[in-house]
Amino acid sequence: MQLEIVTIGDELLLGFTIDTNGAHLARELAQVGITVSRRTSVGDGASEIAAAVREALDRSGAVITTGGLGPTSDDMTKPAIAGIFGRAMRLDDTIVERLRLRWKSRGWPGELPESNKQQAQIPEGATILENQHGSAPGIWLEDERGRWVAMLPGVPREMRGMLADVLLPRLVALVDGVPTVVASRTIRTTGISESALSDRIRNLAELDFEGLSLAYLPGWEGVDLRLTSSGLTAEDAAARFARVGGALTAAAADHVYGGGSDDLATTVLDALREARQTIAVAESCTGGMLGMRLTAIAGSSDVVLGGVIAYHNDVKVQQLGVRPQTLQDHGAVSEETAREMAGGARALLGSSVGVGITGIAGPGGGTPDKPVGTVCVAVDLEGDVRSFRASMVGDRHEIRQRGAQAALNLVRRMMAGMA
Amino acid sequence: MQLEIVTIGDELLLGFTIDTNGAHLARELAQVGITVSRRTSVGDGASEIAAAVREALDRSGAVITTGGLGPTSDDMTKPAIAGIFGRAMRLDDTIVERLRLRWKSRGWPGELPESNKQQAQIPEGATILENQHGSAPGIWLEDERGRWVAMLPGVPREMRGMLADVLLPRLVALVDGVPTVVASRTIRTTGISESALSDRIRNLAELDFEGLSLAYLPGWEGVDLRLTSSGLTAEDAAARFARVGGALTAAAADHVYGGGSDDLATTVLDALREARQTIAVAESCTGGMLGMRLTAIAGSSDVVLGGVIAYHNDVKVQQLGVRPQTLQDHGAVSEETAREMAGGARALLGSSVGVGITGIAGPGGGTPDKPVGTVCVAVDLEGDVRSFRASMVGDRHEIRQRGAQAALNLVRRMMAGMA
Repeated sequence: MQLEIVTIGDELLLGFTIDTNGAHLARELAQVGITVSRRTSVGDGASEIAAAVREALDRSGAVITTGGLGPTSDDMTKPAIAGIFGRAMRLDDTIVERLRLRWKSRGWPGELPESNKQQAQIPEGATILENQHGSAPGIWLEDERGRWVAMLPGVPREMRGMLADVLLPRLVALVDGVPTVVASRTIRTTGISESALSDRIRNLAELDFEGLSLAYLPGWEGVDLRLTSSGLTAEDAAARFARVGGALTAAAADHVYGGGSDDLATTVLDALREARQTIAVAESCTGGMLGMRLTAIAGSSDVVLGGVIAYHNDVKVQQLGVRPQTLQDHGAVSEETAREMAGGARALLGSSVGVGITGIAGPGGGTPDKPVGTVCVAVDLEGDVRSFRASMVGDRHEIRQRGAQAALNLVRRMMAGMA
Repeated sequence: MQLEIVTIGDELLLGFTIDTNGAHLARELAQVGITVSRRTSVGDGASEIAAAVREALDRSGAVITTGGLGPTSDDMTKPAIAGIFGRAMRLDDTIVERLRLRWKSRGWPGELPESNKQQAQIPEGATILENQHGSAPGIWLEDERGRWVAMLPGVPREMRGMLADVLLPRLVALVDGVPTVVASRTIRTTGISESALSDRIRNLAELDFEGLSLAYLPGWEGVDLRLTSSGLTAEDAAARFARVGGALTAAAADHVYGGGSDDLATTVLDALREARQTIAVAESCTGGMLGMRLTAIAGSSDVVLGGVIAYHNDVKVQQLGVRPQTLQDHGAVSEETAREMAGGARALLGSSVGVGITGIAGPGGGTPDKPVGTVCVAVDLEGDVRSFRASMVGDRHEIRQRGAQAALNLVRRMMAGMA
């Protein structure tokens, strides 16, 4: 099955917004064996939308659009596409009622504004694609020849949710036979450089990639290894992923913390939960980022007690019990300070694990001895304290991200008896 | 002047690569008054490339392509487009010589491989666009009617370099007279819904948009109002932005916190710094996100002392001094608890401003009384305590983002005497 994607919005043509919707759609569709034959971006004008969608329909008979479903007057997707199919627009009372309930349940003042009712205008004969992630419903419009357009909202969160909830299941039901897929498998590593990793893998003399391609994807979380297959059935691809992925995982060894889009924070929380441990953080340069990452995971409250954001040195001393002498002798950015912060967080909050992070995120504050990017990390696991000092690359944001990730990785390694 | 962009590469259709080239080109072209009327992405196949470029040429007479100029057999852009213009391919000796020199100067082993010579194949009558950032030269092909295609490489760094060095100057020379620009101005609002904002603006009976278009861009930070001009000189556009933007700002009133890409955290830090205040945070559901946002800004250390991540209720009681009776009577998610958290953070860290956030980020933990998305926020400004309870939409991450933003906004409003 082939289809085309049309993303709608003036902001895409002005370059104000990078089109992440198109890439997300393409990736998800590839997973279920659907090929995207072309992507088009057009502005908000009704005639531009109609022209692009009509051309796409003529080529492929199947089109997904994103954008232009909102309540304002520049949201022209539905009437423009209704025109292609020769359908009139009508007000759908069920949608009006849903919008009303939604308005009330949010406690917003007054009645549903008239402008919002535009979202309840749908083409005659359309199927409504329910939107559990926002107010604008999606639309499925199909003609007697089986040609169809699925209209999704442009807000990425809503589009992604609706794709998973409603559209993908519908499309999977349309695809027949055993499709070949373009599939990929990702192995996530951290704490090892791309070049060290590639040396290890090159040294696997006997490794047969079985036609899979391998990409190294470095980022602040670490280096992901991505295997990609094409032209194979899902089953065949899975078998090759298992064999080749197993060999790569063995090569990367204790640097592997997960697969797919696994988050190191989840890995760490799972390990702590299994060992019935609790954790508290003490953050200086990261300013709360590590706490935010741990608590980003639903259900983290049985493991995460909380922490102290010790941005000012007084907070390090008064709340965490870092000794003024340590600050004076070694500086606020030192393994010694990080160790006392980790112990202090553990003592203060009564957790079994404490983490300390202190560093120089820049752009100012660097010295020849401790340049920007210097981050010291320590973990206190029931009195067993480990620490290291690292040099992180990137801008202020990335240095902080890498610092929090390195701290999580030290917890992971200690919990697994690797450090 | 209008043109179309065609980005070429299978990876764009598979979604492995997000098309940043298209957005960059659109932004840079808008700066010199060139409008992009459509963007298309196609795969590497010669017939797909030829079809997409031919259609784009028929619509607009001017096309920029990126991708498919490399040395491998799947780089079909040049022959595909030469076919549209009815031109044969020929080997350009000057380019071969340049490639040879480049090969040698890099110290690469042996002679220039035959495969690399494909980069020296160019259509008859083409103009070479010099590439100082890589090996594949760009191509300009034009017919007797003045219709043209400019082919740039797909590697973002090379594409951006060539655009700036060679293509933009060429295009600016094509546009005559005082160039008109596509420009925009953004007004950032928060704490008001898109529909309430649009009602306020619709009620400005006397507002003349002077030909500017207005877009509402809702997100977790709030609703941005973006005015866009096209077909005006830079000077004329600026004058209209000032008049129309002024009227919109007056309508949105105290919900406006900045313009452009201003961050509310920066606005708040600036206000605190000016008033010689310091701030400490007490975060439950946001788990450190507010601290992270404040400390994301370089130079925040003169204002931000730190805070307490009070994820577990014991931390709220023991560190922040929230009364157990308050938790029992009103629950951990209540304005009362948020107020005591704010006061507790202030007292514990000795800051002049304290912020408390507590809420239910979900997906679990909601009750009929306090559904997922309920967030209570309080600010204690030197003993003057204000709080509110709000209902945030979105997933766990977005609820937390909106919670932190709402807390910052309460600080902003109190500092400005608006709350």
